[in-house]
Amino acid sequence: MSFDLQEELCQALREFIVDHVSETGGHLASNLGIVELAVALEREFDSNKDRLIYDVGHQCYVHKILTGRKEAFDRLRMYGGLCGFMKPDESPADPCVTGHASSSVSVALGMAHARSIRGEKYHVVAIIGDGALTGGMAYEALNDAGASGEPLIVVLNDNNMSIDKNVGGMARHLAKLRVSPRYLSAKNGLRKTLSHVPGGKSVIAKGTKLKKAIKSVVLPSSMFEQMGFTYMGPVDGHDLQALSFHLQLAKRLKCPVLIHVMTKKGKGYSYAEHAPDKYHGVSKFDPVSGQLPGSTPGFSAVFGAELAKLARKDARICAITAAMPSGTGLSGFPREFPERFFDVGIAEEHAVAMTAGMAKQGLRPVCALYATFLQRAYDQLIHDVAIAADIPAVFAIDRAGIVGADGATHNGTFDVPFLRTIPGMTILCPANFAELRTMMTRAIYHNETGGAMAIRYPRGGEGAFQENTAAEWASHIRQSDKPDVTIVTYGILINEAITAADSLKQQGYQVDLWKVNEISAKTEQLCSGLVSSFAPHVAVLEDVVQNGSFSEAILRAAEQIGHTCQVHCYNVGNQFLPHGSVREIYQLCGIDGASVAQALADIMKCGKDESIG
Amino acid sequence: MSFDLQEELCQALREFIVDHVSETGGHLASNLGIVELAVALEREFDSNKDRLIYDVGHQCYVHKILTGRKEAFDRLRMYGGLCGFMKPDESPADPCVTGHASSSVSVALGMAHARSIRGEKYHVVAIIGDGALTGGMAYEALNDAGASGEPLIVVLNDNNMSIDKNVGGMARHLAKLRVSPRYLSAKNGLRKTLSHVPGGKSVIAKGTKLKKAIKSVVLPSSMFEQMGFTYMGPVDGHDLQALSFHLQLAKRLKCPVLIHVMTKKGKGYSYAEHAPDKYHGVSKFDPVSGQLPGSTPGFSAVFGAELAKLARKDARICAITAAMPSGTGLSGFPREFPERFFDVGIAEEHAVAMTAGMAKQGLRPVCALYATFLQRAYDQLIHDVAIAADIPAVFAIDRAGIVGADGATHNGTFDVPFLRTIPGMTILCPANFAELRTMMTRAIYHNETGGAMAIRYPRGGEGAFQENTAAEWASHIRQSDKPDVTIVTYGILINEAITAADSLKQQGYQVDLWKVNEISAKTEQLCSGLVSSFAPHVAVLEDVVQNGSFSEAILRAAEQIGHTCQVHCYNVGNQFLPHGSVREIYQLCGIDGASVAQALADIMKCGKDESIG
Repeated sequence: MSFDLQEELCQALREFIVDHVSETGGHLASNLGIVELAVALEREFDSNKDRLIYDVGHQCYVHKILTGRKEAFDRLRMYGGLCGFMKPDESPADPCVTGHASSSVSVALGMAHARSIRGEKYHVVAIIGDGALTGGMAYEALNDAGASGEPLIVVLNDNNMSIDKNVGGMARHLAKLRVSPRYLSAKNGLRKTLSHVPGGKSVIAKGTKLKKAIKSVVLPSSMFEQMGFTYMGPVDGHDLQALSFHLQLAKRLKCPVLIHVMTKKGKGYSYAEHAPDKYHGVSKFDPVSGQLPGSTPGFSAVFGAELAKLARKDARICAITAAMPSGTGLSGFPREFPERFFDVGIAEEHAVAMTAGMAKQGLRPVCALYATFLQRAYDQLIHDVAIAADIPAVFAIDRAGIVGADGATHNGTFDVPFLRTIPGMTILCPANFAELRTMMTRAIYHNETGGAMAIRYPRGGEGAFQENTAAEWASHIRQSDKPDVTIVTYGILINEAITAADSLKQQGYQVDLWKVNEISAKTEQLCSGLVSSFAPHVAVLEDVVQNGSFSEAILRAAEQIGHTCQVHCYNVGNQFLPHGSVREIYQLCGIDGASVAQALADIMKCGKDESIG
Repeated sequence: MSFDLQEELCQALREFIVDHVSETGGHLASNLGIVELAVALEREFDSNKDRLIYDVGHQCYVHKILTGRKEAFDRLRMYGGLCGFMKPDESPADPCVTGHASSSVSVALGMAHARSIRGEKYHVVAIIGDGALTGGMAYEALNDAGASGEPLIVVLNDNNMSIDKNVGGMARHLAKLRVSPRYLSAKNGLRKTLSHVPGGKSVIAKGTKLKKAIKSVVLPSSMFEQMGFTYMGPVDGHDLQALSFHLQLAKRLKCPVLIHVMTKKGKGYSYAEHAPDKYHGVSKFDPVSGQLPGSTPGFSAVFGAELAKLARKDARICAITAAMPSGTGLSGFPREFPERFFDVGIAEEHAVAMTAGMAKQGLRPVCALYATFLQRAYDQLIHDVAIAADIPAVFAIDRAGIVGADGATHNGTFDVPFLRTIPGMTILCPANFAELRTMMTRAIYHNETGGAMAIRYPRGGEGAFQENTAAEWASHIRQSDKPDVTIVTYGILINEAITAADSLKQQGYQVDLWKVNEISAKTEQLCSGLVSSFAPHVAVLEDVVQNGSFSEAILRAAEQIGHTCQVHCYNVGNQFLPHGSVREIYQLCGIDGASVAQALADIMKCGKDESIG
């Protein structure tokens, strides 16, 4: 395909993406920015045989369109439809799962080693954004790959920002590279370089078109070069000829190569170009006016506003986030408290350990991360926070439970299980905005143990349940004299539990409903007292995986008091969940109110039948 | 104290360390290498007010001696005695817990931020080895610290090796810096630089002795400089004057400073100088001859030998480790299979994701890590390994359970709980060498699910139990017709379980004993069948924390079948454990055979009394 035709293709791809994402919602700006790069990659590589690994994966739309999944975009990120991230069961063109940042170079290096050891012939390419380079895992992989000498291509998609503005020393280094004098003209240097490269001369000979595309050559003394990579760039990421030229050159080099490609996030759609962060991930919107739907305030926004309010009264309060200031509701915080706001980049391990250091020396730091990304800092929660026992760090865990359209890689279904393994950890579980506010003050000021506190809350808004019961560790939401069943839940699922309770009541059952507000060693001890008051049937309703879930505490308590009740567990099971709406996923797991009521009614009916029989 | 006197002190410190560590065991070579640096740090800083953070912490002996803990060295790493790592409850001079590598810069930056925000005046210093620099967490912190401008001193203790030989691009970069021409003479450059530094001129004026110590000045274009640090070095780490000079200079700079110090591991004790890896961590040895005690072969050695044996027959088998080739028994592997051995540095996140990439592309990779360090890769096990469901990666988990003298930071007491949360994960639990060998073949070749397999085994050797029961998922080790109690355990604790069973039998109880060999979704399903055959009392014996432990599976199974038994759980509880011998820690937790027998006898006696009453 000629470059002219490819340019037309890129134009068509952009229109397709804007048309579809404005209908379905999804990741917009990053996919618009990568159009030419993705087209060039599909042109230069065989994506079914070569391994193209898009880091984080939210910029893989063009790749998916070009590898046979165009029709599926009508159901992008919908239940049963196309996944918004790389997903191997969708296509052989997706070599691995991506969804969390900074993993691509590690997986790519593993694949490149496998290729060499098995004596096979294919290329392995990691496409990684400058934001993901702040992640330590990417550094570990570059450090290893550079020294290994293993042929491997890393394409650095540098749009000068991660989801929010990129941060750190690496960002500064990239900024320096961008304005390198070699960027403007370096034909002679290139010719000289290519003459040392196997096949390089033929690349030059291939035609003037390619040569016209030359914007850069191998540049020494970048950090990448120092780590053992052959560095090329920066390359204009919207110039198809320049991209093809550099990819062709990289393919011929038998060593680790890093191509520094500069792209513009949102490219070709002016609204997104001017506000790429606003158009990073969008819901259905009007493509002509660019008007985004007004967002209903969610837990994140309430958290951000409350933290700012508390910070006005207490100069020790700080906010820490890992490249997610807007996602965690903290966008406003640095405007008001620039010296008390720390966005450390995509660096959860560092964020958690730094938070520990701040807490130890007298601050009141609150570190806000998504539940799924906190998995990256499990060891830091243990080693840097919990062992010392007196580190009053607060972790605000956003996107806990089911996140919906982002699917398996983004669900916060492990947090309660892994946090429960950590000695001294307290998990507060607000069910609505009012409780979140109360619990933030509790976590920051009324921390009896002096240890770490986590507050977990879901993506999105609150439900019908509006009482603030945060003063108690467990609150009795529905009471009946001689209950047939006791439902126990926490957090946002109280709304499903109430639906279940009301439905069972209508069916003539007496229902007891407890809402747990704090999961900790102390409250797990108290469970045996609670459980002794429970009905013959107990349902524990949660939005996390089963193993390690809070139901374990209820089972242990029931064991202690000699099993006066039967415990039934409703949770997401030990599985990864597909994408879909939150409600669809609740239903899939049987943790929506109707399913729980049905399941319990069946059990109790069966019990009655048996007793009758 | 004059430099002459300080040199005498250093000599005395080295003698003290060799004398004591040869008696108690402990970390030797790293502590000998850091003597002058630690003395200079104590001289230039107030360790009760300034915050000196020794990364990893195993090189903190001099620091401990100089901060009032000299007498305690008689009981170094013994139960109730001095901890071998940084430990805040021991002394205000230990600002935080260290034991896992690469965390010091994060914690230090948090502390430095706290100091600045609270308007306090003290210095924060992270002392980090070149090995720990391969850890992504250190990079995340340097990246953030460099850009922040926060005054902070990072002392890079560069001995050109981590525990084993250092690896990666960073190591290569350090090697380049070491031979920088500036290393030899740079007085003029220094004078020029100092004139721009607040107080710099007075440093120069302070006397010729200091000036004589000058070996380097601020060196541009190192990676550290590019990340925003002021780089100084390399400095001779055994030259007290040079060290003091650079530390004084760094204190005056109001920015992030990195001092590159070169030390010799094992310095001053010739045996250790010549074989620093052998003398990294030692048991009691003869200080005069340097003769180390012969080590009894442990699980690590058996693992290494067996993997090499399998690799001889199968060219797809690879070994991956994260800076622990000798610790994991893999020292011999690279000699035989250099192209199939991958030591990625202290980079567990990368190690696990790279292993996933290798497995996906047709290799049979086996990634060997310590249980406590695998915590660093919890997210990678979920995201890069488990979600795809068909990645046949094998994880060899060394040092699972109680490790003894290394204590809280090194116990492998979280692995079963966190691995059980991961859908599709299978955990094999060999109890002796023969079972380890069988299970390795099983994990590599007879993996029915096609997903990830972990094999967990303890530090040290096997016990009296020598049967190979690995063919079954659970084996019936002791049977009786009408048991009073059923004991369930896995792995090395079978030896304690047998002791308990035998003791109970002697007391007249009928005992049933099951050993579980595989913990997985499949076997947890099978538990209900097993539990239905159990005695009225069931004891689940484990060497992990309680929450999320395997006892949860037994509790769920008991729930399913309607509680025909009472389940009693014997594990380490939800706590961090002190250092001591493995036996002492077993006893502390009540998981040694005698304690378990006693506890069960008490329960059953009580039950009998009640039934009599």
